[in-house]
Amino acid sequence: MSYDNIKICVAGGDLRMLITARELSAKGFGVTLYGFDGCSCDSGAAVRESDIEKAVSGASVVVLPVPYSTDGCRLNCPFCKTEIRADGILNVLHPGQLLFAGVCTPSFYSRAEEKNITLIDYMKDEELTVKNAVPTAEGALEVAMRELSVTVRDSNALIVGFGRIGKLTAAAFAALGAGVTVCARRGEALAWAEAYGYETVSTDSICAAVKGKNLIINTVPELIIDRNVLCSVEGDALIIDLASMPGGVDDGFAASKSIKVIHALSLPGKTAPVTAGKNIADAVIRILERRGVL
Amino acid sequence: MSYDNIKICVAGGDLRMLITARELSAKGFGVTLYGFDGCSCDSGAAVRESDIEKAVSGASVVVLPVPYSTDGCRLNCPFCKTEIRADGILNVLHPGQLLFAGVCTPSFYSRAEEKNITLIDYMKDEELTVKNAVPTAEGALEVAMRELSVTVRDSNALIVGFGRIGKLTAAAFAALGAGVTVCARRGEALAWAEAYGYETVSTDSICAAVKGKNLIINTVPELIIDRNVLCSVEGDALIIDLASMPGGVDDGFAASKSIKVIHALSLPGKTAPVTAGKNIADAVIRILERRGVL
Amino acid sequence: MSYDNIKICVAGGDLRMLITARELSAKGFGVTLYGFDGCSCDSGAAVRESDIEKAVSGASVVVLPVPYSTDGCRLNCPFCKTEIRADGILNVLHPGQLLFAGVCTPSFYSRAEEKNITLIDYMKDEELTVKNAVPTAEGALEVAMRELSVTVRDSNALIVGFGRIGKLTAAAFAALGAGVTVCARRGEALAWAEAYGYETVSTDSICAAVKGKNLIINTVPELIIDRNVLCSVEGDALIIDLASMPGGVDDGFAASKSIKVIHALSLPGKTAPVTAGKNIADAVIRILERRGVL
Amino acid sequence: MSYDNIKICVAGGDLRMLITARELSAKGFGVTLYGFDGCSCDSGAAVRESDIEKAVSGASVVVLPVPYSTDGCRLNCPFCKTEIRADGILNVLHPGQLLFAGVCTPSFYSRAEEKNITLIDYMKDEELTVKNAVPTAEGALEVAMRELSVTVRDSNALIVGFGRIGKLTAAAFAALGAGVTVCARRGEALAWAEAYGYETVSTDSICAAVKGKNLIINTVPELIIDRNVLCSVEGDALIIDLASMPGGVDDGFAASKSIKVIHALSLPGKTAPVTAGKNIADAVIRILERRGVL
Repeated sequence: MSYDNIKICVAGGDLRMLITARELSAKGFGVTLYGFDGCSCDSGAAVRESDIEKAVSGASVVVLPVPYSTDGCRLNCPFCKTEIRADGILNVLHPGQLLFAGVCTPSFYSRAEEKNITLIDYMKDEELTVKNAVPTAEGALEVAMRELSVTVRDSNALIVGFGRIGKLTAAAFAALGAGVTVCARRGEALAWAEAYGYETVSTDSICAAVKGKNLIINTVPELIIDRNVLCSVEGDALIIDLASMPGGVDDGFAASKSIKVIHALSLPGKTAPVTAGKNIADAVIRILERRGVL
Repeated sequence: MSYDNIKICVAGGDLRMLITARELSAKGFGVTLYGFDGCSCDSGAAVRESDIEKAVSGASVVVLPVPYSTDGCRLNCPFCKTEIRADGILNVLHPGQLLFAGVCTPSFYSRAEEKNITLIDYMKDEELTVKNAVPTAEGALEVAMRELSVTVRDSNALIVGFGRIGKLTAAAFAALGAGVTVCARRGEALAWAEAYGYETVSTDSICAAVKGKNLIINTVPELIIDRNVLCSVEGDALIIDLASMPGGVDDGFAASKSIKVIHALSLPGKTAPVTAGKNIADAVIRILERRGVL
Repeated sequence: MSYDNIKICVAGGDLRMLITARELSAKGFGVTLYGFDGCSCDSGAAVRESDIEKAVSGASVVVLPVPYSTDGCRLNCPFCKTEIRADGILNVLHPGQLLFAGVCTPSFYSRAEEKNITLIDYMKDEELTVKNAVPTAEGALEVAMRELSVTVRDSNALIVGFGRIGKLTAAAFAALGAGVTVCARRGEALAWAEAYGYETVSTDSICAAVKGKNLIINTVPELIIDRNVLCSVEGDALIIDLASMPGGVDDGFAASKSIKVIHALSLPGKTAPVTAGKNIADAVIRILERRGVL
Repeated sequence: MSYDNIKICVAGGDLRMLITARELSAKGFGVTLYGFDGCSCDSGAAVRESDIEKAVSGASVVVLPVPYSTDGCRLNCPFCKTEIRADGILNVLHPGQLLFAGVCTPSFYSRAEEKNITLIDYMKDEELTVKNAVPTAEGALEVAMRELSVTVRDSNALIVGFGRIGKLTAAAFAALGAGVTVCARRGEALAWAEAYGYETVSTDSICAAVKGKNLIINTVPELIIDRNVLCSVEGDALIIDLASMPGGVDDGFAASKSIKVIHALSLPGKTAPVTAGKNIADAVIRILERRGVL
C-alpha cells in the first residue's frame, strides 16, 4: 500500500512531535498537525490545523505525544494556545482510527476501549526504546560535563543497572576515558559488563562501591540509592538519576547531606529532539507495518 | 564452608583443564589431576594421579573437560597415554559425588542418571558462556589477521548474528577500525546493533549485504550462508564460521567456488587457554555456590 | 630540596587558580592566595591575604592567572573587590622572585625585564598545552551536545586542523560514534588522521567538504572558514570555533547567513576548572624542577 | 600530465611489490614487472618481463623493493629464478631515469650518484611511514594473540616508545581492552600518552614498570630492554621487539633467562601485503607529484 493514501494526524507535543510530523510527511504520508500554533518552526509538508476535529478528520492514524499527558487530564501540548482534554480526543475519533500515544495510563486504555478506539503505546516498542537509549546516554554525558568541575576523563563513574540505558551510558563514559564500574544484581549482567571491559560490583556491595566515585548514575527504577548508600557517597560526588519517576534516589536525604542529585528525565526530547522525533516516526511506521496497515 | 575441606578431581582435557586444576588448587581446594601424564606443564598445587580411581577417591566434585568426549565414547584426554571410556568414569563414582562436564549429550545424562550421579553441564552456565565470548571474538580477530592480505582497518566485515559472540566480535572488529555491518533477523537485535554504531541489514537482504565485503563472520548455527548467498560473495572474501558443528556455511559449494572458509571451533581453548581455564574454574565455584555446596 | 621551604603566592584568576593554590599547598608548598575575597570556596591550606605586598612578601614564586590580564592593563581578578594593575605587581616584586603568568604579551615581558624580574609564561609549557587539550575537546563535545538537536552519534563533523586540539577533539567525537572528517593542509597530518581512522580532506577542498556536515569545528587560528567556505555550509549546521581570538571564522558573514557560530574560548577553565587548576599546579612544579629550583 | 604516458618498471620484491605494480597499472601507468617468474599471482595489467634490460627500457621510473637488498649485494628478489646484483640495475639505467628503492644504504647512494642516477628512498616518505604503522600495529597484535595464553583483554602491556608505531600500537591494544602503560623519555610524549588515556612511566623507571606486565612491546631502536630491565621482567612475559635490527632487546640474556622474545620485522609486508603494496604505490605517485613529474 502506498503511503500517500494514508492520512496521519499528529496532535500535541513539543518540538519532537513536530519533527515526527515532518518526517512522516517527508516519507509520503498525508499529515495534519494540531497544537503548534505557538511554534514557528518549519513543519515541512505537514498541514497545520487549528481545529482538532478538522485535524483528525479522515486520518487513519492519530499520534499523541510522549507523554500524551503530564497531569493525566490535559493533552500535553506546550505550543497550544488553548487547553484540550486528552479524553476529548477520544470523543472526536471513531472506531477504526488507530490512536498512538506515549506512556499510556491504564485509565486512558479503559476510556479508549469504551469508545472502541484501538490505543497503541508506541513507547512499548522495543526498537524505539533501544534507539532512545542513545540520546539518553548522550544526555547523561552532557549533564555530567556541565555539572562536574573535573573532566569526564578524570572521573570515576558508578553506573547502577545494566539494562538498555545502563549499557549505552557505560559505553559512552568509557569511550571518553572515564573509569566505569557497573553495579548490577544478576551475575549474567555482571558477566556482560565484564565482557565489555568495565569494572563490576554486585548490588550487595554498592555501599563500598560508591566510595571514591565522583559520579553515580542510576538507571534502575527502584530506591537503590537509599540513606544507607548515601552515607557512603563522597560529599562532592554528583548523582544523575535517569530512572523514571519517582526515581531511585532518596532525594530528601541527599539534600540533607548536600549531595547534588539531578533527576534527568525525558533526555531524548531535550538533548536531541530531531533524533527523538525521527525515532517516533520510524516506530509509528514499524507498528503500522507489523499490524498490516502498511 | 572453607574451600580446603573440599576435594576436586580434574580428569582429562587439554591445557585449559590443567589451568582449571591449578586455579582451583590456588583458591584452596584440594585438587587431584588425572590424564596429564604426557604434559610437563606446571600444575601448581594440584596432585597428579595416574590412576583414575585414586584420582576421584574422596573427591566431592569431578570435573571433566569441554567437550568431555570428542567421539561420544572416549574421554577427551589428549595428554593421556592410555585411553579411558567416558562411561568408565561413571563406574568409579558413587552417588553424592557431583560430576561436571562440558557439552553433555542426552545419552551421557541418561547413563549418569542410571548410576544416580548428578551430572552438571558447566557450559550451560550463562556467565561462563558470556566470558568465553571474549576469547572467541579475539580468536576470530586473530584468524582474520592471519588470513587476510589487507589490514583489519581496511576491511569491511559482515557479522551474521548478534547474540553473545556476534556482539563481542562486532565490538572487536569495530575497535580496530574495520567497517562493521551486522546482519540479524529480529528488529530488536538490529536496533541494538545500530545503537552500538554498526551498519545493519536484515537477514532477508543478506545476498545484497555480502557484496563488497572482504570478510564474513557467521555466528548462527543454521545454514544461512547457503548456495544463494555464496553466489553473491566476492571471490577473494574470507568466511570465518564460528557456529558450532555443522556450522552455518555450505562448505562444499564454497569450495567449488574457491571461496575460503575457516571453521574456527573451540577458540577460547586454542587462543587463550589460561583465560579459558580460569573461566571454567570460576564457573565450577559459582555453580557450587549456587547449589549450596560452598 | 623539600617543598615546604618554598613559598608560592597565587594572585588573581578564577576558580582554576584557587584550585592551583590548593594543589600547591596540598603538595607541601607554603601558599598565599590573593584576590579571592569575593569567593567563599575552600582554599585548603593556602593562606588568603587581602594585601598584595603581604601576599608576595617572602614568596620565591608568584603565579598570575591565565590570561594574566584580559585588557592588557588590569590583573585578571574576577573575585577581587578592588582593581589592581598587572604592572603594579612588578613594583612589589624584587629580582630573584620568579613570576609565572599565562599568555604574556611582549610588553609585559619588556616591563618585567626592566625590573629584572624573570617572567615565565607557563602556557608555553608543551605538557600543559597537551593536557589542556583534553578538557578543551570535552568542552567542544559539551557545546555540540547542548546546541545540536540531533545526537552526536547521528552527526557528521568536519574538524579543521589536526594539531593538539584537533587530534583530541576528533578522538572524542569519533568515540561517541559521530562521523569524523579531518581537514588539514599537510600530507603528514592527513596521513595521521587516516591512520587514526578518520575520513580526511585537504584544506584545498574544504568548500566541498563542508557540504553535508551538520557540525564544523575549527581549531586553526587563521581565517579558514571565510565567505567562500560559509557559502557551502549547510544552513542548519553549527560551527564551533576553538581557535583563540580573533578565531578562524568570518562571524559577520556567518551571521548574515544565519549560520550559528559559537566561539568557545578558555574551555578548560569553564568546563573543568579543577582539572585545569591541577594542570597549572603541575606545570609550575615541572618548570621549577627544570630550572633547578626544586 | 596523463599517467599513461609514463612507464614504470617494478623490479624484484615479494607479493607487496606485485601489488604495487598492479596498483600503478590500475591507475593508468604503463607498468613492466621483473623478477616474478616464480609467482603465479595475478599481476593485473602490468607486463611481466624476464629480462631486466627489456623491463627498464623506456621506463621513466624504476621501483625496487623494500629492502632493495637483504645482503647489501643481491637484489631482494625471492620470486626470481636467477640472481641479480643490485648494482647491476644501475648499469642498465641511464641518467634521467628515477630509481626508487626502500631503505637505501649510503654505498648504494654513492654508486647511484657515480652513474648520475637519481636514487630516492621512498621509505623516507613520512606519509608512507605513518601509513605503514597501521599494519605494523595490527601485526604486533596478531603476534600477541598467537603467542599469549591469555586474552589481550586480560593482558597488561608495556609499550616502550611513543613515536609512530608506539602510538598506533598503544591504540590497538587499548581498543581491545588491554591495560596499556606507555614508557617514554620525553615529558611531552608522556603528556600525549596520558591525553590518550594510557598509564605512563618515564624510561628512568622502566625496571619497576615491567613488573606485573605479561607483554612488553619495544618500538625504540636502542638497547633499552637490557640485562637490568630483563632481570625485572616476569618469567612468563612475552617481549615483542618491533625496532629495526639489531632491535632494542638483549636477546642473548633474555634467552638465558628463558624469556620469550619475538623480533617482528617487516610486519606490513607479512601481515597485510596488499595494504602495504598499495601504500608503496601511493608513495611513488606522491613523490612523483612532489618532484613535478606528474
